[in-house]
Amino acid sequence: MTVQQFDYRDGDTLLQAGIAFPAGEEKAPAVLIVHQWAGRGEGEHKTAERLAELGYVGIAIDMFGKDVKGDPSGDNSHLIGPFLSDRAALLQRVRAAVTFAATLDRVDATRIAAIGYCFGGLCVLDLARGGADGVRGVVSLHGMLDGHGLEQDGAIAAKVLVEHGWRDPMAAPDKVLAFAEEMGARDADWQLHAHGRAMHAFTNPHAAAPEKGMAYDADADRRSWESVTAFLAELL
Amino acid sequence: MTVQQFDYRDGDTLLQAGIAFPAGEEKAPAVLIVHQWAGRGEGEHKTAERLAELGYVGIAIDMFGKDVKGDPSGDNSHLIGPFLSDRAALLQRVRAAVTFAATLDRVDATRIAAIGYCFGGLCVLDLARGGADGVRGVVSLHGMLDGHGLEQDGAIAAKVLVEHGWRDPMAAPDKVLAFAEEMGARDADWQLHAHGRAMHAFTNPHAAAPEKGMAYDADADRRSWESVTAFLAELL
Repeated sequence: MTVQQFDYRDGDTLLQAGIAFPAGEEKAPAVLIVHQWAGRGEGEHKTAERLAELGYVGIAIDMFGKDVKGDPSGDNSHLIGPFLSDRAALLQRVRAAVTFAATLDRVDATRIAAIGYCFGGLCVLDLARGGADGVRGVVSLHGMLDGHGLEQDGAIAAKVLVEHGWRDPMAAPDKVLAFAEEMGARDADWQLHAHGRAMHAFTNPHAAAPEKGMAYDADADRRSWESVTAFLAELL
Repeated sequence: MTVQQFDYRDGDTLLQAGIAFPAGEEKAPAVLIVHQWAGRGEGEHKTAERLAELGYVGIAIDMFGKDVKGDPSGDNSHLIGPFLSDRAALLQRVRAAVTFAATLDRVDATRIAAIGYCFGGLCVLDLARGGADGVRGVVSLHGMLDGHGLEQDGAIAAKVLVEHGWRDPMAAPDKVLAFAEEMGARDADWQLHAHGRAMHAFTNPHAAAPEKGMAYDADADRRSWESVTAFLAELL
């Protein structure tokens, strides 16, 4: 299994996706993977490969730009800040990846879902909030839940699953309650799977800063992957 | 697949369990099923059969007494009230079922779990809260979450999963937060899977009183069963 690089665009911005294809030649459902704040990297590519092994076209998309790399162990606020303060731009950028995915020969454009980690979790939730044209459902893993700043209303059509570390300081209980209220008000088919002991970044084996509320959690990593794959099977 | 009836005791009280055995002769892990407030019935026996098909000894236990039947569509407060006001008696009653299960020839007494519905959800959570001797883990489905009235502390050893309807008026968001706090304070390995659109009794095909916050929900029923069986596979 190898990941191939493909260029695509959001308007004038050149972007690059890493794609893992399942065996065979026929069309397959696709799962977009949206990276955390350090940008697309090894973790997202491994996830693409795991998804390809399950029969999906795994597409690690790009929110920042083809040659823009974050610092995996540093502060990447400058990379996500512009999107957090302009959620319409965020939505346009993630939608560009859906449009790109739908053009691929191997992709069944009627069967696309999106999953995202941390910042990427916010991206896929915004995709659902924004109407989610072309996406059947989304999964946020230890993502930011905040719905403020988006000017959207009406029913949410995409199915929503949130894999959440209960001890995640970036999505404290008050954010969970606000999110639940938002989803209910928009009549979403939503689920939230809380992992009681887990903190932020629980799927990232390199996360080891419990004093900042960030740590890998093997149980939550394994259990959330089981939930995600069951959900994808339902969607696609 | 048939359910066989077995008498057992909690002190002077005669109780009766309905048991479905998996194919074969060898020992198997067991799953106790604790009924909702109307008492043990068709639903619990069906669940026992589904579990036996998965290779578990499915044991629909009895909290009320061998010949005590509730009204499936009526008010059964008089049956659960004494247990809600005496949580030590509740714990003793559900522990009697664990002890009984461990004596069965077909049961591997080192591999027992318990699941419960509504009132039964509270019973299995109390089993975990009380130390859960003999049980590896518990699942509450649309159960009551309230931990008050139990005099217990220290770490909770049994793994805990809660399948929760977010619109369940018997476990509103403030109860969810209090439960999360309780589990965290006792260092439990806990998960809560919230089903956004579901109300109380979401696994019960006969529940049809949305005006009272009770209704069957096919999505939540199917998804929660997937989560429960994945969790049992991890435990047993």
